[in-house]
Amino acid sequence: MKARSITMLGTGLIGEFYTMTIHGQRGRDRVRVVYSRSAERGTAFSERWGIPEHTTDIAAAVNHPDTDVVVVGLPNHLHEEAVKLAAAAGKPVLCTKPLARTADEARRMLDAVEQAGVFAGYLEDLCYTPKSLKAFRAVQAGAIGDVTWVRSRETHPGPHSAWFWDGRLTGGGAIVDLGCHCIEIIRDFVGKGNRPVEVMCVTDTLVHPIDDEDNAIALIRFESGATGQFEVSWTFRGGMDLRDEVAGTHGTIWINHFLRTGFEMFIAGGSAGYVAEKAEAGSGWLFPVGDEVSELGYVDMFTDMFRAMEEGRLPQETFYDGYVVNAIMDACYRSARTRQWESVQLEWRGGVSPRIARVPELYEGLIVIKREILPDGRQKLILKDPASGGFVDRVVAG
Amino acid sequence: MKARSITMLGTGLIGEFYTMTIHGQRGRDRVRVVYSRSAERGTAFSERWGIPEHTTDIAAAVNHPDTDVVVVGLPNHLHEEAVKLAAAAGKPVLCTKPLARTADEARRMLDAVEQAGVFAGYLEDLCYTPKSLKAFRAVQAGAIGDVTWVRSRETHPGPHSAWFWDGRLTGGGAIVDLGCHCIEIIRDFVGKGNRPVEVMCVTDTLVHPIDDEDNAIALIRFESGATGQFEVSWTFRGGMDLRDEVAGTHGTIWINHFLRTGFEMFIAGGSAGYVAEKAEAGSGWLFPVGDEVSELGYVDMFTDMFRAMEEGRLPQETFYDGYVVNAIMDACYRSARTRQWESVQLEWRGGVSPRIARVPELYEGLIVIKREILPDGRQKLILKDPASGGFVDRVVAG
Amino acid sequence: MKARSITMLGTGLIGEFYTMTIHGQRGRDRVRVVYSRSAERGTAFSERWGIPEHTTDIAAAVNHPDTDVVVVGLPNHLHEEAVKLAAAAGKPVLCTKPLARTADEARRMLDAVEQAGVFAGYLEDLCYTPKSLKAFRAVQAGAIGDVTWVRSRETHPGPHSAWFWDGRLTGGGAIVDLGCHCIEIIRDFVGKGNRPVEVMCVTDTLVHPIDDEDNAIALIRFESGATGQFEVSWTFRGGMDLRDEVAGTHGTIWINHFLRTGFEMFIAGGSAGYVAEKAEAGSGWLFPVGDEVSELGYVDMFTDMFRAMEEGRLPQETFYDGYVVNAIMDACYRSARTRQWESVQLEWRGGVSPRIARVPELYEGLIVIKREILPDGRQKLILKDPASGGFVDRVVAG
Amino acid sequence: MKARSITMLGTGLIGEFYTMTIHGQRGRDRVRVVYSRSAERGTAFSERWGIPEHTTDIAAAVNHPDTDVVVVGLPNHLHEEAVKLAAAAGKPVLCTKPLARTADEARRMLDAVEQAGVFAGYLEDLCYTPKSLKAFRAVQAGAIGDVTWVRSRETHPGPHSAWFWDGRLTGGGAIVDLGCHCIEIIRDFVGKGNRPVEVMCVTDTLVHPIDDEDNAIALIRFESGATGQFEVSWTFRGGMDLRDEVAGTHGTIWINHFLRTGFEMFIAGGSAGYVAEKAEAGSGWLFPVGDEVSELGYVDMFTDMFRAMEEGRLPQETFYDGYVVNAIMDACYRSARTRQWESVQLEWRGGVSPRIARVPELYEGLIVIKREILPDGRQKLILKDPASGGFVDRVVAG
Repeated sequence: MKARSITMLGTGLIGEFYTMTIHGQRGRDRVRVVYSRSAERGTAFSERWGIPEHTTDIAAAVNHPDTDVVVVGLPNHLHEEAVKLAAAAGKPVLCTKPLARTADEARRMLDAVEQAGVFAGYLEDLCYTPKSLKAFRAVQAGAIGDVTWVRSRETHPGPHSAWFWDGRLTGGGAIVDLGCHCIEIIRDFVGKGNRPVEVMCVTDTLVHPIDDEDNAIALIRFESGATGQFEVSWTFRGGMDLRDEVAGTHGTIWINHFLRTGFEMFIAGGSAGYVAEKAEAGSGWLFPVGDEVSELGYVDMFTDMFRAMEEGRLPQETFYDGYVVNAIMDACYRSARTRQWESVQLEWRGGVSPRIARVPELYEGLIVIKREILPDGRQKLILKDPASGGFVDRVVAG
Repeated sequence: MKARSITMLGTGLIGEFYTMTIHGQRGRDRVRVVYSRSAERGTAFSERWGIPEHTTDIAAAVNHPDTDVVVVGLPNHLHEEAVKLAAAAGKPVLCTKPLARTADEARRMLDAVEQAGVFAGYLEDLCYTPKSLKAFRAVQAGAIGDVTWVRSRETHPGPHSAWFWDGRLTGGGAIVDLGCHCIEIIRDFVGKGNRPVEVMCVTDTLVHPIDDEDNAIALIRFESGATGQFEVSWTFRGGMDLRDEVAGTHGTIWINHFLRTGFEMFIAGGSAGYVAEKAEAGSGWLFPVGDEVSELGYVDMFTDMFRAMEEGRLPQETFYDGYVVNAIMDACYRSARTRQWESVQLEWRGGVSPRIARVPELYEGLIVIKREILPDGRQKLILKDPASGGFVDRVVAG
Repeated sequence: MKARSITMLGTGLIGEFYTMTIHGQRGRDRVRVVYSRSAERGTAFSERWGIPEHTTDIAAAVNHPDTDVVVVGLPNHLHEEAVKLAAAAGKPVLCTKPLARTADEARRMLDAVEQAGVFAGYLEDLCYTPKSLKAFRAVQAGAIGDVTWVRSRETHPGPHSAWFWDGRLTGGGAIVDLGCHCIEIIRDFVGKGNRPVEVMCVTDTLVHPIDDEDNAIALIRFESGATGQFEVSWTFRGGMDLRDEVAGTHGTIWINHFLRTGFEMFIAGGSAGYVAEKAEAGSGWLFPVGDEVSELGYVDMFTDMFRAMEEGRLPQETFYDGYVVNAIMDACYRSARTRQWESVQLEWRGGVSPRIARVPELYEGLIVIKREILPDGRQKLILKDPASGGFVDRVVAG
Repeated sequence: MKARSITMLGTGLIGEFYTMTIHGQRGRDRVRVVYSRSAERGTAFSERWGIPEHTTDIAAAVNHPDTDVVVVGLPNHLHEEAVKLAAAAGKPVLCTKPLARTADEARRMLDAVEQAGVFAGYLEDLCYTPKSLKAFRAVQAGAIGDVTWVRSRETHPGPHSAWFWDGRLTGGGAIVDLGCHCIEIIRDFVGKGNRPVEVMCVTDTLVHPIDDEDNAIALIRFESGATGQFEVSWTFRGGMDLRDEVAGTHGTIWINHFLRTGFEMFIAGGSAGYVAEKAEAGSGWLFPVGDEVSELGYVDMFTDMFRAMEEGRLPQETFYDGYVVNAIMDACYRSARTRQWESVQLEWRGGVSPRIARVPELYEGLIVIKREILPDGRQKLILKDPASGGFVDRVVAG
């Protein structure tokens, strides 16, 4: 494996998490130069993480002669410029989520990297949590049958940085901030080749005095007949609620990434120190997270990205995926305005998906609706007469 | 307190639960006569529960000279007739859920009891679980501020009785069976005086070879701005998933009624006997429920009903509530067909609800978006300049 | 069923819970007269619960002509006198836990009721929780095989009433207060016919400036080879931790009665009102209990007591059980002093228990230590050669 | 950071986990040569992990000219020889748990590395889980006050490899296999400078036809007055139960490493593939673990070891710690035989610990036993009169 030398763009919370991950444990890769719009933040950041250089010149950072990967950890409105600079420099580029503010912007970024022929990875960490990865593999192996429904939920009391609240810079509110995670998680569960057809979305500005949504719920219909459902909010009280629920024809998956992970503390008073991202309290019952950069997927994400570069393959999460997510978010915002189901408009590369299987079983000419095991081992069948349309039950040997 | 003598109509699962509850613990009330369409089931039921008489004549059961309450535990298509008989007999009548198959039918039943002037209770057990009652009281006391969102979910692998699967008898599929619970739970949390304005609903028939929906998701918008969300399914794998989640401006409530209630068993093989309603397995990790008739609300429900009769007041759940639930379900079915938001059409008796409160706080002329406590005790304010629309953050003393 | 008219002795927290239970729901039984050492508390209590009479004369209360059951809810040092009065009056007597301060005292009480021939019930509520009852039945039905180990834990920050802290009145500290529950729960799981042979106990006074133990751990060895383990404390932080864990040769049971029962609230500030007995906080994450008198076993306990009287049988929990519990607690206190295993000294009425079964299976002349299912369906056997004493593994068809 | 080139001794499950960790993610370190007693296993292992060389000559492996660290992942009876070879070679050595079969053996190993002056690390992974590390830091920062009690529990249905069952090779049964983890976890919570004074231990051979214990419970008394409690078993049913509970004077910590970590799957039938180490079932409700090598502490453990080498400091877990653990296990086995409290015999290097603090607060000359907040905001004090020894309660302003 080759060690990577990285240009890090951005010194906010996401830059912290990325650098903490890359420099963490026994990692071979290192941030070589960091770009910040503020010299002061750049200095502090490079000292904190032992980074040799920092600059306020984004082009100089991207074109630094000693780096071979560019990581974009900037506010949303600066992604396009950064990605185009990296493409022009012919360097692999990894861009934080959401890829862009709109599908059009994402499309231009996708075109830029494809035309330059550079490796491009979409840094969608929550699709790389260890739990998610194991769950995706189980679903792909057929463990729960056909996926019929996915609920992905991310809610907390609101972002830490001022720019997140300014829809002019971000492209929206809670959907652009959190919904992008949920949408891609849903896609990983229903299958990336499963075309998102249309969406219905409701947005509200319930609590915070802002113009954009601080709360949203959306339904996404996929070609297979599966439904994705996301709930995002900046108004949740109690910490960060990060859960995924998946229903399949033969099984169920429930994942809780944050508030109930088998680590519970009660503090009678005073402070327990830093508990977890977006924790709301320092006493009472607290629910810390063990190793956030691992649990939130950052570790496995960068491993996949750097390995994919070496192996000449696509990473699990690509710029095309980021573009699809933006297209779905665009449809969500349209739907919230029109109050109609809105079709997802995108260039689809994913092929065609069959409908969820539903092959009726017959018993003596009647359609089997359900089988139940009785306490004595016999089976109770609920049967439908295709002729009359009537239903009966019958107990048979087990 | 007066002991009640009861006419029980119906000997299915719900009749079992009702009689088990009424005859349970140290209850003073007794079923005096039971009506079943089948003499065989009537005989077995009356013997099982020590009921003096049984009959296949519904009018005789209702008009039995020694009973003073009629409990309707029949399939949906038989509710109207039973309630009208009770009204004609001038007896208090308690009717199982859903009240009717449609709002029109419910309305006729409501009119019948109101015109007869008899006490009428809607047997919506899940609004009476001990957890629900405590949560409703906490919400009404303002513990979590204004309710912004309620998710109520009831999913399992499908009903036990054949008639449940026949939409001609029930009025629909999973919505009529399970959604009625969720809707009334949502109403209890957002406030019964909070008018349900419109709904958006998606239905599917995913797994079972039937004509009606085995899966549905709906959004309900209330006058206050709160959103109710229900998920119902006959395709869930893993037992009975019965959960409610409530978000308020100052707090959160999560209730799990069934699968994770602090009672866990692992059985290496063989059988653990009866585990809980709709449990799917007899070995491996199982999640039994302590006392189902208490946990599912039956005990508190009948207590409220009988006490309300004595105290000359309305019970918590009335026929009017059942009618509102039917009106919302009607709108759900319309919406599933038209794929539009559909208004809830009903005679509203609940008054007017104000919008969820949102009063911006000012700090030196700027709008406070969020306050965060820093580890050193100081506060970080995220502020919006009302003039420029820009956002900044500022750290101040705690 | 006959309605019972009750003499209630005591107006503290336990008297409240008992009366709340008996007068709750649709109960037919009523408290007719209440005795309190304080006229003021007696007046308030009788008004609160609608009790016709109150008195400060215990003999008058017991001998009241219109009552047919005496319930003892007094501090420990007053149990013996109260039970002897009831025995003399020839009335059934139900006594709260612990039965007595020592096995000698318990023995005198047992003799008194046996000589008088009156019904006597031991009000050990935690052996009657709905979860416990279902778990006992599952264990008795063989669901988890032979019970090998039971852990019962009851810890909280300390009692609410002053007298509880005075070992001269109670007979000890946390063991007498809480250990009595744990011991009887353990006995119900390992089998009441399973003789408690000896105990090892450690006590500490860790936090509170008292003379008696505020913390204790004990191991109890039963004739079958099973081990009971209890942990009791008045120093726990976080509410009331009430858990039971049972290991069997074929299964496992975990019960959480209080802090994690599927009911979770987050309150951003202010107060959620009364949360649950011994909750420590009114904001942050809280874990309320639905219906405490049901969840803590009071409802099923009184039902069993009154039904047992009617049916002329023993209740699940008898004075003899209370006496056994006191004998085990006596041995615990001795062991804490001598730092030795101490034998449990009691008149044993429970017969003889066989050892936990352990029949080695043979495979081609070797002893099978363990079987594991491999991912490919084959089985891996771990085998012991009885001749050499050596161990090998071997993979065979599944 | 320097990349390490490693001699791996052993190709069993532990060698797999170690190599998976070292070669995982973006790690810079690599196994250069692997030693196995079996050429066949050595070949397979080196191919599976891309290791350049393998050998059946342990001395050749240790003395390999291109390696600079020796990792011992061999059965217990081979640790001493391997460590002495590494010491003789002057190479840093990391040895798996338990360090040795007895304290005497551990002491010889400790002497060997100290005399050779080589870095020596004790590979106690469960003291390095992300949850454990965060909890240790919280405790060290005083978040829960003085630690009074730690329960550490590790139970599962028994080891996968034949040699584990042979006490002649391992030094015992479940205590040597699992208790060593629990003991060191307990030490990390109560403080490594807190001298273990004496132990009381019970062992049983309950289920498996072996000579050593398949079940054990022990109490460890520390100089501060804290109590450690461990429960280990090879007879648990339901998977691997790996939990730690910590009580402090001001707080509580509960950690569940395996069975309830926020990842739940229900599989209706068939198989979900590999679920987690020692999972017992492939259908029904399953509780997988996200990333086992991270969650079980292997990642942070090797990071600490290699960083400690670079920084010239001791790792968190040293050979001295391993020796202390062996000394405590020796005392456990003695106690199980003598049925007495047995003192822990060891050369203590940890200094002296003060007693858990207990400073009584006074209120108007009375000792404050407890303060409770009443619903109306006032405080209820429970007070002891130091003169009379009597207890009273008093309500005061909040």
